Amino acid sequence: MPRKNNPRAVSDQVSELTAGRLSLYLRSLNVLDAAGVKTISSKALAEQFHLNAAQIRKDLAYFGEFGIRGVGYYVKELQRQLRVILGLDRTVRVAVLGAGNLGMALADYPGFRQEGFSIVAMFDADRSKVGRRSRGGVAIHDIAEFRAMVEREHIDIAVIAVPAEAAQQVVDTAIEAGVRAVLNFSPGSLQVPPEVKLKNVDLTVSLESLSFFLARGDGDGTDDI
Amino acid sequence: MPRKNNPRAVSDQVSELTAGRLSLYLRSLNVLDAAGVKTISSKALAEQFHLNAAQIRKDLAYFGEFGIRGVGYYVKELQRQLRVILGLDRTVRVAVLGAGNLGMALADYPGFRQEGFSIVAMFDADRSKVGRRSRGGVAIHDIAEFRAMVEREHIDIAVIAVPAEAAQQVVDTAIEAGVRAVLNFSPGSLQVPPEVKLKNVDLTVSLESLSFFLARGDGDGTDDI
Repeated sequence: MPRKNNPRAVSDQVSELTAGRLSLYLRSLNVLDAAGVKTISSKALAEQFHLNAAQIRKDLAYFGEFGIRGVGYYVKELQRQLRVILGLDRTVRVAVLGAGNLGMALADYPGFRQEGFSIVAMFDADRSKVGRRSRGGVAIHDIAEFRAMVEREHIDIAVIAVPAEAAQQVVDTAIEAGVRAVLNFSPGSLQVPPEVKLKNVDLTVSLESLSFFLARGDGDGTDDI
Repeated sequence: MPRKNNPRAVSDQVSELTAGRLSLYLRSLNVLDAAGVKTISSKALAEQFHLNAAQIRKDLAYFGEFGIRGVGYYVKELQRQLRVILGLDRTVRVAVLGAGNLGMALADYPGFRQEGFSIVAMFDADRSKVGRRSRGGVAIHDIAEFRAMVEREHIDIAVIAVPAEAAQQVVDTAIEAGVRAVLNFSPGSLQVPPEVKLKNVDLTVSLESLSFFLARGDGDGTDDI
């Protein structure tokens, strides 16, 4: 079977790091599509979005021959294929654990909705928060209801936004409830069984790369992470 | 001059991407140091923190011969050197623009303080917020005071945590006030002059890599970004 007709089958060749880049390409293609652009070359894509043209060609080569010599990529078709590869051709259902400032901000984060994620619910152990909603309308449930909600609401991803000292217990609760993918914003390292995918977001790394730039004392433009 | 005695001079050879990895190595070394570990091999460092041993050796080779054959790296010495390279041998002063949920969460984010960043102040245009403080004690100032505060408080980095529609105006204010490094959490692209370093944090990329994992249907452990 030609690779280009079966993107999901080849997706296991694609590393995690590539997934991050594909995600950035998709974001860029969304911008182009909204602007009415029909085709784009890897060079123009790289220049417009501060990406690497050779890397784009290499990454997209996994998915067959999308690039047409002298034309570039068809924006809509590449968008569609990237969404399939990234598992975004269905709605991915997300719960936020912890309804403090960070949890509230994540529940209403505009990018999550734009890209087809559905923030189903927030959970907190603080009874005074239960029953309230984020500004965007996401309801706060008692963490004791989490297990039942995972089954009823088909929650795919748990976002951990609780203080560090509560994080391991909360992630254990999520995993016992059957969640297989965890996005952790809490500092410190969490233990998960091998069948669970844990992604740690450490915001300090971004600040440190700016500090590195300031220490070095030269400008080199924009970065996306 | 031998390279190992002058880490800042070689830091301009180090790419932005390397800076992100150095930041992760430093985080790992901090954990080891706190646990009383004196030396560690690149292999053990890689295994313990889900990193790549060959990449560690390559990245650290820029800074001279820290690795001692049969011993590994001296934890405290490597920590110290990495802090110099990353510009963390002095306090980096940060202002958060936007005192909504995200701004509040960032102002109190424990990792920022741990790594030697000082969150000097928050700013907002909403007068009802001015004068209040985050739970961690960071005061909210009127955005109109920003320029004067940048000079008086020597603010190095502006963190943008305002809604997308206000972000360009707020980043313009920061740059006019003399800020040269911007960490942007607002979705959408911002324009900055070439001498300013802009780092965009797109939280959607992390969720998409989990979605990619769920679509692919196999586990491969923990990732740090």
